[in-house]
Amino acid sequence: MRHFGSTCSALLLWTTFALPLGEEAPLRGFTAEASRIEREWEAKFRAIPRPDSLREYMKRLAARPQHLGSAYGRNNAEWLRDKFRSWGLDASIETFDVLFPTPKERVLELTGATHFIAKLQEPVIPTDPTTSQREEQLPTYNAYSIDGDVTAPLVFVNYGIPADYEQLEKMGVSVKGAIVIAKYGQSWRGIKPKLAAEKGAIGCIIYSDPHDDGYHAGDVYPKGAYRPKGGVQRGSVMDMPLRAGDPLTPNVGATATAKRLELSQVETLTKIPVLPISYEDAQPLLSAIDGRVAPESWQGGLPITYHVGPGPAQVHLKLQFNWNRVPLYDVIIRIPGTTAANEWIVRGNHRDGWVNGASDPISGQIALMEEARALAALLKQGWQPKRTIIYAAWDGEEEGLIGSTEWAEQHAEDLRQHAAVYINTDASGRGYLGMGGSHSLQRFINGVAKDITDPETNLSAWKRLQFRNIVDAPSGPARSSLRSTTDLRIEALGSGSDFTPFLQHLGIASLNLGFGGEGGDGSYHSIYDDVALFTRFSDTSFTYGRALAQTVGTAVMRLADADILPFEFQGQVDTYGRYLDEIHQLVETKRERADEVNRELAEGVLSAVSDPREPNTLPAKVGAVPYLNLSALENGVAALRASARRFETAFDKASIRTIAGLAELNADLTQTERALTSDRGLPRRPWYQHLLYAPGFYTGYGVKTIPGVREAIEQGNWSEAEEEAVRVGAALTKEAKLLDTAAARLESGAQ
Amino acid sequence: MRHFGSTCSALLLWTTFALPLGEEAPLRGFTAEASRIEREWEAKFRAIPRPDSLREYMKRLAARPQHLGSAYGRNNAEWLRDKFRSWGLDASIETFDVLFPTPKERVLELTGATHFIAKLQEPVIPTDPTTSQREEQLPTYNAYSIDGDVTAPLVFVNYGIPADYEQLEKMGVSVKGAIVIAKYGQSWRGIKPKLAAEKGAIGCIIYSDPHDDGYHAGDVYPKGAYRPKGGVQRGSVMDMPLRAGDPLTPNVGATATAKRLELSQVETLTKIPVLPISYEDAQPLLSAIDGRVAPESWQGGLPITYHVGPGPAQVHLKLQFNWNRVPLYDVIIRIPGTTAANEWIVRGNHRDGWVNGASDPISGQIALMEEARALAALLKQGWQPKRTIIYAAWDGEEEGLIGSTEWAEQHAEDLRQHAAVYINTDASGRGYLGMGGSHSLQRFINGVAKDITDPETNLSAWKRLQFRNIVDAPSGPARSSLRSTTDLRIEALGSGSDFTPFLQHLGIASLNLGFGGEGGDGSYHSIYDDVALFTRFSDTSFTYGRALAQTVGTAVMRLADADILPFEFQGQVDTYGRYLDEIHQLVETKRERADEVNRELAEGVLSAVSDPREPNTLPAKVGAVPYLNLSALENGVAALRASARRFETAFDKASIRTIAGLAELNADLTQTERALTSDRGLPRRPWYQHLLYAPGFYTGYGVKTIPGVREAIEQGNWSEAEEEAVRVGAALTKEAKLLDTAAARLESGAQ
Repeated sequence: MRHFGSTCSALLLWTTFALPLGEEAPLRGFTAEASRIEREWEAKFRAIPRPDSLREYMKRLAARPQHLGSAYGRNNAEWLRDKFRSWGLDASIETFDVLFPTPKERVLELTGATHFIAKLQEPVIPTDPTTSQREEQLPTYNAYSIDGDVTAPLVFVNYGIPADYEQLEKMGVSVKGAIVIAKYGQSWRGIKPKLAAEKGAIGCIIYSDPHDDGYHAGDVYPKGAYRPKGGVQRGSVMDMPLRAGDPLTPNVGATATAKRLELSQVETLTKIPVLPISYEDAQPLLSAIDGRVAPESWQGGLPITYHVGPGPAQVHLKLQFNWNRVPLYDVIIRIPGTTAANEWIVRGNHRDGWVNGASDPISGQIALMEEARALAALLKQGWQPKRTIIYAAWDGEEEGLIGSTEWAEQHAEDLRQHAAVYINTDASGRGYLGMGGSHSLQRFINGVAKDITDPETNLSAWKRLQFRNIVDAPSGPARSSLRSTTDLRIEALGSGSDFTPFLQHLGIASLNLGFGGEGGDGSYHSIYDDVALFTRFSDTSFTYGRALAQTVGTAVMRLADADILPFEFQGQVDTYGRYLDEIHQLVETKRERADEVNRELAEGVLSAVSDPREPNTLPAKVGAVPYLNLSALENGVAALRASARRFETAFDKASIRTIAGLAELNADLTQTERALTSDRGLPRRPWYQHLLYAPGFYTGYGVKTIPGVREAIEQGNWSEAEEEAVRVGAALTKEAKLLDTAAARLESGAQ
Repeated sequence: MRHFGSTCSALLLWTTFALPLGEEAPLRGFTAEASRIEREWEAKFRAIPRPDSLREYMKRLAARPQHLGSAYGRNNAEWLRDKFRSWGLDASIETFDVLFPTPKERVLELTGATHFIAKLQEPVIPTDPTTSQREEQLPTYNAYSIDGDVTAPLVFVNYGIPADYEQLEKMGVSVKGAIVIAKYGQSWRGIKPKLAAEKGAIGCIIYSDPHDDGYHAGDVYPKGAYRPKGGVQRGSVMDMPLRAGDPLTPNVGATATAKRLELSQVETLTKIPVLPISYEDAQPLLSAIDGRVAPESWQGGLPITYHVGPGPAQVHLKLQFNWNRVPLYDVIIRIPGTTAANEWIVRGNHRDGWVNGASDPISGQIALMEEARALAALLKQGWQPKRTIIYAAWDGEEEGLIGSTEWAEQHAEDLRQHAAVYINTDASGRGYLGMGGSHSLQRFINGVAKDITDPETNLSAWKRLQFRNIVDAPSGPARSSLRSTTDLRIEALGSGSDFTPFLQHLGIASLNLGFGGEGGDGSYHSIYDDVALFTRFSDTSFTYGRALAQTVGTAVMRLADADILPFEFQGQVDTYGRYLDEIHQLVETKRERADEVNRELAEGVLSAVSDPREPNTLPAKVGAVPYLNLSALENGVAALRASARRFETAFDKASIRTIAGLAELNADLTQTERALTSDRGLPRRPWYQHLLYAPGFYTGYGVKTIPGVREAIEQGNWSEAEEEAVRVGAALTKEAKLLDTAAARLESGAQ
């Protein structure tokens, strides 16, 4: 220990003694000694992953189309299992049996004068060998569209989100009895047919507008990485905001013997037929639509004036599917823990793509593989994780998070009891570390990010992200706050990847990680998402793949090795307090808006500004927005705030060695996220049990925080908003009580 | 007079007595009796203009191409003069002799592998007869481009405004030695070659991107009114922010005998050759540019990915002009005043178009004609304006406000002494009344707008505009303020029409009026701006043309008949105070920005967020922004505020009948706008003498208020900003003193 002499102030001496120069503060939840050892193991771990290995894995896994139910997909599963076993890991395949419709017939044509038949086929690119594997490629379609044969006038609905239908109503245009054509984007794709059907449409076409991921965004493939004119985004349109997983086996694992619904009983198929197309196929359809010119913000990147219709273009859409069941293969690795084997750290990435899927999902899967290889190497060197670690390569994610959901449903009881944390990755690229998840893990994952080196700048991944946020900040105060913060805010999770069954169905604290933000492409869910494109345009050096493996592996080890699970709750409740503020603001904005609309109607403002050549339909008088009783929610936040503070104070003072009941403490901490769930789930979607985070019922990917309250307010259901506030308040209070219990245990071990 | 009985309060009784039910407040500057008579004459006036007359005038005036120097233009001038005379008015043609280059040779071609020769010719549209008058149409070109023959790589510069060059610099792209291709829009077109030349470019191409006024904006002609692929925007690129008018005769009327510069001495020609093209001609050029992909906000509406270059596309641009002088014919009407003949109200609209010019300028010219016809009719009925009224149909506006500028320069002394107000119109359409001008006329023109009926809603034009502003308001407080205001704010004037020589060169209080905002088109300065398009898509009923004639005619009469000129200065100084606030905010923003950039450079933020595959050039360390002494300006505003209040109080109490020196009072009021000018003019552009309003040196059309100070700050010239603040402060103080003198006269006539 260095001696600074007698001129130093007491405080400086104290600080110096507490943190001798060159030594870091102990990791949260570790003793100083355990922290030192942990850091050594983590450093060894991070030295292992190799870009060349990542590249080789990708070449193998994305060599052929490998979707759910495909021969190469099964081959990949077996290869992965054998690879993991060759490293000495306990790997096995867990099989489920799930509904997976594939196209039998697809017809899309313009009837009438300008006859046109859509190609519905992505062109081969001669310089890209895997694009020609046509035999094995799934056709371009949306899975879980119902069968249908409809002919009707076309209506262009922009992105087909609620705001677009409000605009159509204002323009006096109805989609009743029509086929809608919507752009991809601005919502999860399944929202488009769902909303269209609610509005009375009888068919739905979704296309990729070149403004969004085609030539307007950048050079198209093969010159650049953006969507060529014939490229199509496949994708599931299952009603996942209602429930994820195999449509035939809600709430239970789709084992061979599981009780199954009849197809006619399934709730998560679409109500109308849906088909995705390219912008090459879309242009003749959009050009044939007349009627009012679409609003300026609806005009896309095609060299035409977009109109809304309806018609005169009449479209014939015919879709028939093989409603087959196929086997699904999850690859599962188990690394048993030592002293806390009953506490599980679960880490997953899906392994199935829509076609070759080099980026989605193989770029994430190969990081998972290198993590597993490195952990296996450490185990051989004597590393002994306290907690049990489970690694999973999910199948059937693209169709509806099926592999992860069926596994989570099958093992629900065990997971609810044992799983402390789930960490997810998916497609990953180049640039900045994206961090989303449960806010009790915000401090933890910020700490990990500080230990990861960004391959382009040699700054830490955390520092580079902080710098990015400073540059993007909207104001001076926002920049100041970013400069002084120790924890960057992590995103709340909506849906779109395999964290959903763990976080939102089971209430397991979760993280979703990945790199991105530099470059970009339009190969998503097309035959062009392949090795040739990825290795020319994305993480070409695979150094970000290595950084991802380093990030997630470090997180897994640190979680598995900590004496006390490193959850932190003051950051969590601070975030929840912000959500509460947003909800208050939402009510206020709705109230002001309602008052203003009613006032403008009364004054005649709205009729006065309506252009008589393109008259607007005036809105109906709006009901006044009442003042809501959200006190239970407010009290819940207040209770959690107090308990989080008590917990943190106790945590700071506790000596890990002397705490009575460390196992019970960790068990309580594991349950803090579960406290935020309800067996009844969210209104009208009981599968979603987390009361703080959910995919939006009308946004899909986009998260709604405190969804029961927020969505009720959005829909103007005031009594439900108040009821849900009571439920959320109770959940927060339940978590607060758990923290009080945990704090009491810590206080028992105070220094 | 109604009696309200003894329970009424004294105040209420007073109010009731002052404004008996059913009677309006007297017009500002009129006695109650004079106001009643004025209202009767104005009502008679507004009953006269007829849509059918407007339609007939347009058919005649826009029947053939009628640009400066054309046979049909001269024919129109004579027809107008004779028409005015036939109504009994004193009309004559005033002729000038001005420089007007027209193309001798125009070549634009891609050299190298993909040879392409630009068409440079707008296609005839068979259903539109006047588009085929090719013999008389001016070719597509930019007037006052220099001759040139250059071959160089192309660089795409977006709109070619200062912010775009900052972006190019960040991307490490220079235009030195290159030919730039810029989109029309975001600045006056002459700014584009001016800035390009300053940056080292040797040629400039300007094109109309379909995103801005082509198919992205709406259906193209002839289906709709937007720019078809072959449509080209002609236009002047004279350096008008330096000086308007005939380039050979700065500051003096271009009479036959005027002293003229040699061509080589002219300052307002471009420094490099410039040519406008269609988007059909632009697409091959833009497609042949490679290098970095242009930023997302630069991507236009063509179905390509826009790159910035330079090259590899090499372009050959050759331009040769006939540098001829042509005769210019202003048509001038004079209606002599009676008791205040020495005070002039001047009203103008240009009569020349680039081709047929149905919208620009004939839609405004025909309103002027109906005003003149109606005034002539009133004169026959015995109406006697106190002040002299001058109506003017300007020639050569399109080339550089030449007709108005030469006339204003020729009659500068008289105008400075006698002209109280100039009222301008130009192309006018359908929708909302646009009001711009000197803020001492804000209350006056608001009052006029309240007396005009909007033809679509039968609300007053003022009420409809208020409603529009409420709907567009950004916030609740902004809406509240709009709901309670008596005066809607009028826009400050930059340039782009004939008010410039009157307001900004001579310091005559000016207004610019017109209807618009509903519909829109892309025929601007093309062969498609013709009767066929206008009568299908614009003010098809000519009822807005009538409303424009009613608005301007009412304003002219009210100004000509008032006992006291109805200027109002509290609104003026309130507006100037806002400009001062903006300037303080501008300094503050620049200071924060400089500090932030320097801090980010020091921290390494900017290098950290630079994508190594597309690295940014880091900015140089910025000099700190000093705290400026703007006290003279602040004191000037304060002095004007005090004097405006004194004037208004005196005005409220004054009895017009008993004021001593009414003529002197009006003469003082006439000089209030002149007080805001300086003989020295603005820095580096002495022709622009108004110290409060000017076209931006680097924006062109866009106004810069308090331009000497504001532009100095924008350019980081701190000492000039302080010097200019002293000059503006002195001007405001001079106006304040005039108001004190005027107030003293009013006080002499207090009730």
